[in-house]
Amino acid sequence: MINAVGRDIPEEVMKATGRDIFRGSLYHDNREYTKAAPTVRAKIDPTRSKLVGSIREALNRCGAHDGMTISFHHHFREGDYVVNMVMEEIHNMGLRNIRICASSLGKAHDPIVPYIEDGTITSILSSGVRGKIGEAISNGKLRDIAVMYSHGGRVRCIEEGRVHIDIAFIGAPTADECGNLRPNGGKSNCGVLSYAYADAQYADHVVAVTDCLVPFPNIPASISMVNVDYVCTVDAIGDPAKIATGAAKPTTDQRKLLMAKYCTDFVVATPYFKEGFIYQTGVGGASIASTIYLAEVMRQRNIRMGLGLGGIATPMVRLLEEGLIGKLVDTQDFDLGAVESVGSNPNHIEITGSEYANPMNKGAYVNQLDFVILAALEVDIHFNCNVITDSTGLITGAQGGHPDTAAGAKCTIVITPLLQGRSPAVCADVTTVTTPGESVDVVVTEYGLAVNPLRPDLMEAARSCGVPIYTIEELKDMAYAIVGTPEPIQFGDRIVGIVEARDGSIIDVVRQIKEFEFAD
Amino acid sequence: MINAVGRDIPEEVMKATGRDIFRGSLYHDNREYTKAAPTVRAKIDPTRSKLVGSIREALNRCGAHDGMTISFHHHFREGDYVVNMVMEEIHNMGLRNIRICASSLGKAHDPIVPYIEDGTITSILSSGVRGKIGEAISNGKLRDIAVMYSHGGRVRCIEEGRVHIDIAFIGAPTADECGNLRPNGGKSNCGVLSYAYADAQYADHVVAVTDCLVPFPNIPASISMVNVDYVCTVDAIGDPAKIATGAAKPTTDQRKLLMAKYCTDFVVATPYFKEGFIYQTGVGGASIASTIYLAEVMRQRNIRMGLGLGGIATPMVRLLEEGLIGKLVDTQDFDLGAVESVGSNPNHIEITGSEYANPMNKGAYVNQLDFVILAALEVDIHFNCNVITDSTGLITGAQGGHPDTAAGAKCTIVITPLLQGRSPAVCADVTTVTTPGESVDVVVTEYGLAVNPLRPDLMEAARSCGVPIYTIEELKDMAYAIVGTPEPIQFGDRIVGIVEARDGSIIDVVRQIKEFEFAD
Repeated sequence: MINAVGRDIPEEVMKATGRDIFRGSLYHDNREYTKAAPTVRAKIDPTRSKLVGSIREALNRCGAHDGMTISFHHHFREGDYVVNMVMEEIHNMGLRNIRICASSLGKAHDPIVPYIEDGTITSILSSGVRGKIGEAISNGKLRDIAVMYSHGGRVRCIEEGRVHIDIAFIGAPTADECGNLRPNGGKSNCGVLSYAYADAQYADHVVAVTDCLVPFPNIPASISMVNVDYVCTVDAIGDPAKIATGAAKPTTDQRKLLMAKYCTDFVVATPYFKEGFIYQTGVGGASIASTIYLAEVMRQRNIRMGLGLGGIATPMVRLLEEGLIGKLVDTQDFDLGAVESVGSNPNHIEITGSEYANPMNKGAYVNQLDFVILAALEVDIHFNCNVITDSTGLITGAQGGHPDTAAGAKCTIVITPLLQGRSPAVCADVTTVTTPGESVDVVVTEYGLAVNPLRPDLMEAARSCGVPIYTIEELKDMAYAIVGTPEPIQFGDRIVGIVEARDGSIIDVVRQIKEFEFAD
Repeated sequence: MINAVGRDIPEEVMKATGRDIFRGSLYHDNREYTKAAPTVRAKIDPTRSKLVGSIREALNRCGAHDGMTISFHHHFREGDYVVNMVMEEIHNMGLRNIRICASSLGKAHDPIVPYIEDGTITSILSSGVRGKIGEAISNGKLRDIAVMYSHGGRVRCIEEGRVHIDIAFIGAPTADECGNLRPNGGKSNCGVLSYAYADAQYADHVVAVTDCLVPFPNIPASISMVNVDYVCTVDAIGDPAKIATGAAKPTTDQRKLLMAKYCTDFVVATPYFKEGFIYQTGVGGASIASTIYLAEVMRQRNIRMGLGLGGIATPMVRLLEEGLIGKLVDTQDFDLGAVESVGSNPNHIEITGSEYANPMNKGAYVNQLDFVILAALEVDIHFNCNVITDSTGLITGAQGGHPDTAAGAKCTIVITPLLQGRSPAVCADVTTVTTPGESVDVVVTEYGLAVNPLRPDLMEAARSCGVPIYTIEELKDMAYAIVGTPEPIQFGDRIVGIVEARDGSIIDVVRQIKEFEFAD
């Protein structure tokens, strides 16, 4: 069936995944549903301890079994040890057909690829699958169709009961023996545990994994003991150097700086740029440069940002400290400056993944955004964005909060160079749709910007801001004029993954890659 | 059927209320159950407002109907306006057979008694029913059998799905237009919203009622917008003078001071009195005096309380500020000093009702208590306590956290004078069992103390502390020697209420009162 972004979703994929096609961002607004609920065990006896001696013991006590679903968070980012240590133990126990429900997976988890190949892991749900897991999926090695959801979509998926977690493993920088978990105060601090909150609420069994057991009560807790069954202490839950790197250096790439300047010029020309505006940006070079340019204008015009949100890095923290931002709400920390700030600044506040971006709760922070500044691997002439597959069709990225913030913000700006290497980033049709064009208002390139025709109200700002204006087709034509019309990527027949829209429908599919074959 | 505290629970009451008899405090430990779940509506559209113009509009939008269950919290205590204003509107709409699921009801709610009499309200669940509602229930005016639960038991009742809330009305000192609710920053501050948290999580519809709408985002929020459907602004949600009174003056009643001294002498002689101990006390005169005496010993011996918990009043706040307490976790604020502290002191932390006392979650704070100091209207020779019915059998009290803390604490001390007026407070059989004797370790009176034979380990402390020791039977005999053996209270046949044990079973029933008839 053809969905609302024009992709043909085979009915056997709809059947296999139990999902409808994408019918538009607001299609499910006001939909009534009954939330999922975990099956839990009462802990009335005060003398019963939650401490277990090993991951194996935790698995046994939780009744680990073939076919179960286990979950992980990605707050340790490229420094995570938890996924690998749990999967190794599960593999050693000889368990099969495991489904992983991760908030994201990355290069840190390359070691579990053999468990995909040998059938230990047969199903994966994740925001993204960077690294060798992405390659394995793209090469058809995973038995089931992988599901790639957004950060908000994942919480929805769990809260709707679309995925039911048997055991959640929650890496925690600090834990007390009762299971109060905090992202700070240990040796592997990650700042927040936002994406693990839903797991703690909705999993039947919850195991905290920590390398820093602290005295009770470890509060204020990001994850409360009322949802934790067992606490397991291990030598190390992660590599601190890879969990929180030092602050990224501002970019000196002239192309990125130009795009950032264009982006800022547009932002400040819109009616949304006014005292108390609400803003989110990514942590790419151009995005961070935009924030730095924007701050300069804020100082000049004496305009304060009321709220900054999303994944946080040091540049936003500095603006908070300077008083240019009223409050930050935080779901992920990209560097040490952000980790330290959220642990100490009362105006820098951890929120849950649901609060951030879940489209099916009673209202998420993304809905309040005035601006979101995003990046993309590709944008097409329908303003559809791709943040998942690279120019060879390989799964290399993650949705993250891209579709969530784009859907919620009053003004969604996607910054992308006209070309990514030798490939047009502005193109006729993105390889994979992750964010529907109806959610994208403006595309900024180093040549100028394009306004989505759905937003004629933004054209006035575009005209007044001094940045060259093109139609999106013109930008595409400019790209094609430089590198030529790209050959379509050649895929195999098998569908290896679906891109789940934030409302749970299928916005696109990802097919198995194959070697490029030249035409005769 | 005879339950574990020897009360005969008629089978028709078990049937009518769908509840088993009480079989002992640990009977349900490790019980597996599936949590309840609300039926909610997605708010995807960022432009849809939650603001409603009146309580009536909120009721209409939530589909208010005959037979529905609505809920309220009691954080405004005797100053609450919310229950009455909502019930008046429901009455004006002509709705019938309403069930109220309140965290507690008090004298502030006397005006809803006519709605009980006319069939608007036919069912009540509440921690307690002080004032004229208690009288109405005791006089048989409520159609259904009233359910009186503990604070922890209420959360369990909701989380188990024993009661399903159609609409929760949450009075909020401040709210933003998205429904982020805080107990501070307004004109009717109550310090915490702990008991409303479960309502927000488990009710199908959630209406915030505020008299102070503040700019978005109102954070850190006690109740998050993700669970709130509508925000209704009214002129006043409560009478600030009755919500948070000034700090209570320390008692000068010599009998209370003596009991407090005895209590402290015993506490400091136990092995649990050591650096980092965890402690809760009520806010009665003797309890507060105990805390003040205890603080003196703590200073002398340089012993710090690690954690104080429960309902908080100024004496505990002062000890926190003095550094004698490490942290306070708070579910209720009894005075202005506590309200101000929880809003400003980072070591004074709001927790939810489930975290505090829910017996069926994965571990509550009460389980960690070393000591709890409680009061009681009656204690019997089985150490059973009554905190609900007075010497005439009338419902006048509330369970609160009494059975929860008693069950959780390593050392549960009940302070009671030998006589309450002309009635023996230590007696052969309490009028109504609210807390089972198995949970009560020591009874302290102005004559001396009695140790529960189930706790021989505490006898050593008792012997060494210098307080006169009696058996509980001897204390009862002393009481009876002074005022004579009391005439049994004469009740009518009809059962008007059940006392629900914290695990959801029936620990006792309350019968309709009747005029005392002298024997021929």
